[in-house]
Amino acid sequence: MSKDPLPNQSDDFPRWYGEVVRRADLAEHSLVRGAMVIKPRGYAIWEAIQDALDERIKATGHQNVYFPLLVPVSVLEQEGDLIEGFAPEVAVVTHAGGAELEEPLAIRPTSEAVIWATYAKWIQSYRDLPLLYNQWANIVRWELRPRLFLRTTEFLWQEGHTAHETEQEAIAEALTILHDVYADVVENVMAVPVLRGRKSATERFPGAVDTFTLEALMRDGKALQAATSHYLGDGFARTYGVRYTGRSGEEAYPFATSWGITTRLVGALIMAHGDDRGLRLPPAVAPHGVVVVPIYKDDDRAQILEAADAIAKRLTTAGVRVTLDDRDARPGFKFADWELKGAPLRLDLGKRDLERGTVTLVRRDTLASELATMDELGAIVSGLLDSIQSQLAAQAQERLTAHSFRPTSLVDLEELLRDATGFATAGWCGTDECEALVKERTTATIRCLPIDRGGVEGACIVCGRRAAERATWAQAY
Amino acid sequence: MSKDPLPNQSDDFPRWYGEVVRRADLAEHSLVRGAMVIKPRGYAIWEAIQDALDERIKATGHQNVYFPLLVPVSVLEQEGDLIEGFAPEVAVVTHAGGAELEEPLAIRPTSEAVIWATYAKWIQSYRDLPLLYNQWANIVRWELRPRLFLRTTEFLWQEGHTAHETEQEAIAEALTILHDVYADVVENVMAVPVLRGRKSATERFPGAVDTFTLEALMRDGKALQAATSHYLGDGFARTYGVRYTGRSGEEAYPFATSWGITTRLVGALIMAHGDDRGLRLPPAVAPHGVVVVPIYKDDDRAQILEAADAIAKRLTTAGVRVTLDDRDARPGFKFADWELKGAPLRLDLGKRDLERGTVTLVRRDTLASELATMDELGAIVSGLLDSIQSQLAAQAQERLTAHSFRPTSLVDLEELLRDATGFATAGWCGTDECEALVKERTTATIRCLPIDRGGVEGACIVCGRRAAERATWAQAY
Repeated sequence: MSKDPLPNQSDDFPRWYGEVVRRADLAEHSLVRGAMVIKPRGYAIWEAIQDALDERIKATGHQNVYFPLLVPVSVLEQEGDLIEGFAPEVAVVTHAGGAELEEPLAIRPTSEAVIWATYAKWIQSYRDLPLLYNQWANIVRWELRPRLFLRTTEFLWQEGHTAHETEQEAIAEALTILHDVYADVVENVMAVPVLRGRKSATERFPGAVDTFTLEALMRDGKALQAATSHYLGDGFARTYGVRYTGRSGEEAYPFATSWGITTRLVGALIMAHGDDRGLRLPPAVAPHGVVVVPIYKDDDRAQILEAADAIAKRLTTAGVRVTLDDRDARPGFKFADWELKGAPLRLDLGKRDLERGTVTLVRRDTLASELATMDELGAIVSGLLDSIQSQLAAQAQERLTAHSFRPTSLVDLEELLRDATGFATAGWCGTDECEALVKERTTATIRCLPIDRGGVEGACIVCGRRAAERATWAQAY
Repeated sequence: MSKDPLPNQSDDFPRWYGEVVRRADLAEHSLVRGAMVIKPRGYAIWEAIQDALDERIKATGHQNVYFPLLVPVSVLEQEGDLIEGFAPEVAVVTHAGGAELEEPLAIRPTSEAVIWATYAKWIQSYRDLPLLYNQWANIVRWELRPRLFLRTTEFLWQEGHTAHETEQEAIAEALTILHDVYADVVENVMAVPVLRGRKSATERFPGAVDTFTLEALMRDGKALQAATSHYLGDGFARTYGVRYTGRSGEEAYPFATSWGITTRLVGALIMAHGDDRGLRLPPAVAPHGVVVVPIYKDDDRAQILEAADAIAKRLTTAGVRVTLDDRDARPGFKFADWELKGAPLRLDLGKRDLERGTVTLVRRDTLASELATMDELGAIVSGLLDSIQSQLAAQAQERLTAHSFRPTSLVDLEELLRDATGFATAGWCGTDECEALVKERTTATIRCLPIDRGGVEGACIVCGRRAAERATWAQAY
């Protein structure tokens, strides 16, 4: 652990983020510019998120599959919107097996193309629908300004690709994923509250009819898009010739959705909860739930280590993720190290504790400490972990509420956005022009619109014409 | 399901294999030659194998990480043996982000190069050792003669990469993985018995000092290498400049292991257990543990479907993986379909069953059926699943024993190997010449040698000189 103090969030948030990722040993840049190595502690967080997602993806009726990494460039180019959106970011394999390939192969920047080209074989009749498939995969999109977890040339994700008989069913699918899978994991497992919404036309996924989104607030006041779920209409089916025989014998095109969530969520977790001492991890995703720190001198070392080991074993048996920190280092070093690494709960055990039959429990979220007797330890630890999980969520929710504004003039809106103080919601006429003007003046974007259209009153905050939408703007990652 | 009968294994095993993979909906060829799409039923088998492996990899002290897909060609080329072994199979990215890259990037054919180049930063002191890391990843190796699961240009695997202070510790690690992780999963979860051994020099992993292997017997008498674990010496550390300060302050190079298991295991599972009716899946990895087939006529359809549904729910609650086959099809079609797909246990429910309060249970392994009363159903099903798991293992073990031979002359050896009747074990002088001669005459290879060296008596079955090893030959996938 570095001896320099961590930069304060308020002084230099980007440097705070970079230092936390590095010092807490979550990830590092790789040999290849823009790619990252995910280290054990960072990967363990991703695995916890994966498990929570996979369970819900299966519970909502989806099955996992695996489609190939490499896609013929010609297949990718069939879908005009898609290739226009992704062409600048695609990596291309031109040689393999010691020879130049007849046709270059793209590394998937997303898998709609290869999957819908394959669905053409799989969907012949309405009896084949719906297809509810998901895959866990790596994706390559060439990034010029990489940042660990947030923007990397390669990232890990899941991508769902479903096909349905009706438009209504496909839209319902996209929303089920948004609410019952994504929002449930981000809010209840990661303890990060989100706005749920719909993207404006300029912010949609290439080829989508509607993109639904979860937008989270980071502690520097910027928004981060935590997940997206797309209703794709029947465009992909038409492009890739996916036709089937419908219930009345008619030829029909299925309606599509796709939806994804990536390793950038680890970045969201860090920036939503971390403080000037480092990470604060919700127990549901923390690699170390409780860290036991024995505090000893030379003469009582063996005795205290033995007692600490017994406590760790007892808590492990009770189903708690426990780490015994028996490193040969000063307690002060260990305290700071586990604060940096965001372990939710620390259990200190010294000579006096041993004599009294107590331990000292220190919460990472509030830094508050309390004594606990050995008899009641299991119940207290489990209660504290629950409390930390819900307190982190409550704190983040308070922050989100406090940083949600309703500006009433363009001047107010621009000021809020330039300072990156959170979300600003106001009427919008729905035109690209007004959207572009705010972006040009502030660099902020419309993060989302309400999922349900219509029922909007009042005027566009930019041009004063009648509002068609209530838009929520923010600076964003 | 196709109406043509499946080819018999004894008539045309390769065609039997291809048809089973296709008809049981496990996988199919992709748009890109040599790559495969893993379909839901195939992927569910892989997930069951993954879960079993991941649990044991973690229980033996390893942590998961993720290293990038793309490796600079120059980094890959640093390790002479590795690049010599893999150069003919590497796929190369030359363009990305709309421009030609300054340096071409290889898609990982295995990750020793990128990982050891990174370990140079991570290993400074003996305190940093051992490093016990694993990753789940996709791999590309250009294959000219692809076969689903067995040889594909892209496959999924886990690869472990560890670093140790001593040679002894590294060898012990490679063997722990072979015995406690790989053999435990292949034998006890997949129910496939294996020979455990060491590879001859010509069959070793490029750059390895020793390659340990698990060899399984397929039902056509050929061997399949189910897993390998390599002791790599300090060659990779020297190549990539991984030096550390040892316990006495001396500069030292760490000793390495690597080990991997791939999606080809799904192919092994199919060929080790399948019969002329199709797949036979051990319950521990079967996507469908018990399939409930309601047998009804028009007038009792609703009543029987309702009872079948209640049974399925009851078994699900008891922790059994149950599928209710309520498709609108003849029972005979369903029976054949689930035999093809290898569901371990079928539960038939007809009108007479309903009247008597019984069901008919049909085991896929033996096709034997028995009546069970509703009261005792949970216990009987669970007992039958256990019995199917152990019977499949026992049958495969019997076959392995019956197809293990001890030829006493070169003529005998060649005859056994030309017919691909299993494993043939005999003395070998240890020279490349005698190994090459047998391969030239029979196309069979030495699959393994005993893990412990020495203690060999008798003569080389090829040249008659003193034997240095007892070698086990077979035709192999």
